[in-house]
Amino acid sequence: MSSSGPFRGVLSPILTPFDANGAPSASRLAKHCESMIRHDVGLALFGTNSEANSLSVKEKRELLDALVANGLPTHRMMPGTGACAVADAIELTRHAIDAGCAGVLMLPPFYYKGVSDEGLYRAFASVIDAVASDSLRVYLYHIPPVAQVGISLELIARLLKTYPGIVQGVKDSSGDWNNTAAMIKRFGPQGFDVFAGSETFLLQTMRAGGAGCITATGNVNAPAIAKLAHDWRNDDAVLQQKRLDTLRSIFARFPMIPAMKAAIAWQSGDENWARVRAPLVELDSHQRAELERALSAANFHIDDARQFAGPLASDTARH
Amino acid sequence: MSSSGPFRGVLSPILTPFDANGAPSASRLAKHCESMIRHDVGLALFGTNSEANSLSVKEKRELLDALVANGLPTHRMMPGTGACAVADAIELTRHAIDAGCAGVLMLPPFYYKGVSDEGLYRAFASVIDAVASDSLRVYLYHIPPVAQVGISLELIARLLKTYPGIVQGVKDSSGDWNNTAAMIKRFGPQGFDVFAGSETFLLQTMRAGGAGCITATGNVNAPAIAKLAHDWRNDDAVLQQKRLDTLRSIFARFPMIPAMKAAIAWQSGDENWARVRAPLVELDSHQRAELERALSAANFHIDDARQFAGPLASDTARH
Repeated sequence: MSSSGPFRGVLSPILTPFDANGAPSASRLAKHCESMIRHDVGLALFGTNSEANSLSVKEKRELLDALVANGLPTHRMMPGTGACAVADAIELTRHAIDAGCAGVLMLPPFYYKGVSDEGLYRAFASVIDAVASDSLRVYLYHIPPVAQVGISLELIARLLKTYPGIVQGVKDSSGDWNNTAAMIKRFGPQGFDVFAGSETFLLQTMRAGGAGCITATGNVNAPAIAKLAHDWRNDDAVLQQKRLDTLRSIFARFPMIPAMKAAIAWQSGDENWARVRAPLVELDSHQRAELERALSAANFHIDDARQFAGPLASDTARH
Repeated sequence: MSSSGPFRGVLSPILTPFDANGAPSASRLAKHCESMIRHDVGLALFGTNSEANSLSVKEKRELLDALVANGLPTHRMMPGTGACAVADAIELTRHAIDAGCAGVLMLPPFYYKGVSDEGLYRAFASVIDAVASDSLRVYLYHIPPVAQVGISLELIARLLKTYPGIVQGVKDSSGDWNNTAAMIKRFGPQGFDVFAGSETFLLQTMRAGGAGCITATGNVNAPAIAKLAHDWRNDDAVLQQKRLDTLRSIFARFPMIPAMKAAIAWQSGDENWARVRAPLVELDSHQRAELERALSAANFHIDDARQFAGPLASDTARH
């Protein structure tokens, strides 16, 4: 029999906006999160597309605290807490659980390459044992194209055996549908929730019995992606999927993170949104013009973008 | 004309010993560093072979403070301070400079792959600008087999132009002699110090006008490697190089970090030395027996290993 965890449908690795001085902008982030929630998209904060590994542990703790203080729903939060150093992963995971987050998304330690499943098992087990909370729900983050350290089916099996009810699911960003399908088939019946790493595989994932997707483009195309997660049994599901693919393909022509931020800057009128942290680089003016042309031709718009421009009304008027 | 930085000859990325509870053992580390200094090997603390990316920023700061407090010479210290998050790299670099370290070895941010030279330039420049110290000497750490993010000749040229006297050298762990030779030829005349990433290229590097090597096996074969760096003009230099290669090839049959730690545990009689942090895994008993057999056959021994076993005499008797 299958039970399932606290998340279903669509989540997005929330883009992290930065102020003019380069600091994370908690106020812009909170407003963007509000928009995601309005569109029924969950908050996979501190993911790859959040530039999470360009943020310090302290910055992530403070951002999470600010979101909670702003009333964002912790039952929709799945912050990324994996790190190269297990001590950092423990600190972030504990903080997330203490804040009430329904789950965490955990990268493996990713500096050393060619490490064994035994070593990765120990890394995850060390975090789970140290946090030692029945409230902990761990989603494993398999993203070999970036981390270069992956999570094998055998590793999942071993973790599930030791930590049933704690190890709750996976985000599969391998881009390999066969791998996603194998995860669903093998572990789905145990109540293990498999999320595709992008909406490209959303319909396939839902049809195969997966939980949904955690996708970068949720930041810029939330309503349509959430609709397919809801409507996947409908007659027009294939057509909906095709439309999602078309829009995603525009962003995929550019470096994705700067392109999504440029799109939000454009739609919101808030140029701060375009900013990225090194080692990433903003789109140049030619790229931005090309992106805007292509998005306009596709009738792209973010309905409520102007609502998440600039600081919160409650902020002091520093700008 | 060529000027040169504060380091010459051999440095070693110092292995980080751990206590039974998994914490870094500052006392064992200090004694091991004393041994390195006795053998004229510099202290490239917090390198890849130090499991530095498995340590938190706080752990690294505290270890450095402990070494300084134990009287280890800061003019021989080149701690690794690069990190995925620029804020972490700034904190560690500033701490190293405040402690008096003669230089720092800086990884590029290594999570995002396929990033541009512009992005990497910004990352290094952000750290240098934020630390803003005339005492800063940056050695760039090029290790594409592990970091998967490399440092191109063009990036070095650009950094040298903006930060002459600050950007002082490179450790080339590409394993590609042509690349090392190209760095020496192009930047050596500007006083830029090129260190090979292992003693395999020590003789070639010295002959080409490089500064020396920063090598993992310095941890276990310090006297012989330092001797070649000193004797490289002698008639027996090729023979010395061959002997170094033979010993290194034994360690290279195993995962290097656990193997070097196992060798020190064996020679010192202190089993704590064998411990590694996840995601690395210790050698198993068969591997250890095989390693010891091969090392014995090669007449391997660490003369002063017993001196760096266990806690310092000044420690309280916790064990």
